[in-house]
Amino acid sequence: MTREIAWSEWLDSPPLSIADFEAAIRAVGEERYHDKHPFHKLLHGGKLNKGQVQAWALNRYCYQEAVPRKDAAFMSRVHDRELRREWIHRIHDHDGLGEEAGGIERWLVLTDGLGLSRDYVTSRRGALPATKFAVEAYVRFVVEQPLVVAVASSLTELFAPAIHRERIAGMLANYDFVDDHVMAYFKRRLSQAPRDSDFALGYIKANAHTRAEQEACVAAVRFKCDVLWAQLDALHHAYVAPGVIPPGAFRPGEV
Amino acid sequence: MTREIAWSEWLDSPPLSIADFEAAIRAVGEERYHDKHPFHKLLHGGKLNKGQVQAWALNRYCYQEAVPRKDAAFMSRVHDRELRREWIHRIHDHDGLGEEAGGIERWLVLTDGLGLSRDYVTSRRGALPATKFAVEAYVRFVVEQPLVVAVASSLTELFAPAIHRERIAGMLANYDFVDDHVMAYFKRRLSQAPRDSDFALGYIKANAHTRAEQEACVAAVRFKCDVLWAQLDALHHAYVAPGVIPPGAFRPGEV
Repeated sequence: MTREIAWSEWLDSPPLSIADFEAAIRAVGEERYHDKHPFHKLLHGGKLNKGQVQAWALNRYCYQEAVPRKDAAFMSRVHDRELRREWIHRIHDHDGLGEEAGGIERWLVLTDGLGLSRDYVTSRRGALPATKFAVEAYVRFVVEQPLVVAVASSLTELFAPAIHRERIAGMLANYDFVDDHVMAYFKRRLSQAPRDSDFALGYIKANAHTRAEQEACVAAVRFKCDVLWAQLDALHHAYVAPGVIPPGAFRPGEV
Repeated sequence: MTREIAWSEWLDSPPLSIADFEAAIRAVGEERYHDKHPFHKLLHGGKLNKGQVQAWALNRYCYQEAVPRKDAAFMSRVHDRELRREWIHRIHDHDGLGEEAGGIERWLVLTDGLGLSRDYVTSRRGALPATKFAVEAYVRFVVEQPLVVAVASSLTELFAPAIHRERIAGMLANYDFVDDHVMAYFKRRLSQAPRDSDFALGYIKANAHTRAEQEACVAAVRFKCDVLWAQLDALHHAYVAPGVIPPGAFRPGEV
């Protein structure tokens, strides 16, 4: 279907209908969202030991920590005040605002619960280089791409609630070092992510006018899935199989 | 005094005392803050006609509009969540938050009061190229410079309350097209700017450790004064003397 047409042909093709455009975006999730990655199946199925879950949580911290910087980088390019006023709540969701501590704090409650020190986690010292490269590629992407394409890259949020529900149930059932309290991050995201993805989906429908722009949006969701997938590849390689931990990266039991 | 030492010598010099560092920052204001520019003296002294005040207001809009983007660009580089949580209120001040409309809205009340259409002002179509180049140089500066130097570049706020008080009094007294309502922007900044400059001054005192870092901070305040000064040079050239308006720029009476 649409995926098989060469990019140069899209330039002259009529735009997809709004329904087909949304379907093409959603199809990316079915094809390559990281819920299909073997590491996630191990994580949710209770097949990892505590050290491996620690490795996941402290690497994933780098992604959490990059997201508000990504959103700020996006806002730095936006001349439309109304769009900035809408987008800034994503930073509030992660960094908190006033009394509200925000999602990163909830992530640190998770890493606390796993017995990792906050200084070590927030230093990002033990994170895999591939994690840091992947998340910074995301920050750069929203700086360098057209705004509508940058917005599209956030649309993995369309696929997030399902994985979060699965993760909450699976991790609570399978790990005695995980409780309700430490899963607060994912519970909060169940309501935040749909609000964000509704806005972003509406935005790209209204602002991707040509077929080429629509395809660039679809490619942006693929790119973002790659950012997420690459993080799990690196975790799997370092901590599952073959289990070769890169120099300087977190070694379970040694922190 | 300190300004006469070559950069290479600073590398080996001991750091300034905190008091001397602050004095060096403040001395930049005395030397080159834009309250010394002839255009400001004309503006505050009631010596401009309405078209010239319009030109000032719509060019200055570009600066106002760049500031929250500059703050977002800065935040996109900050890994310290507490610093982001502190800095984000600057974006709230300009863009507003929820019910609060923010400083850019107040600036548009000023341009409304001057009889300019919002579409025209916010399009930035009539602004002088030199204005846009200057403000975007500021946005780039905070992306490219070390964080402490980026923070220092905000410190022209140390000098702002005095010019705002002078501007409120001078413009109200001298122009029949200016009233209390349209001067709301400046009144609000009288309380916002000192909060921001107190934080920024504390930050650079705590984070500029070497003489070279301190001097880079002083140079950042000079850079920022240049950004402001260059905007007034361009206005003066186009709308006062010799009064040669660049192609495409605002022509009083024609909008």
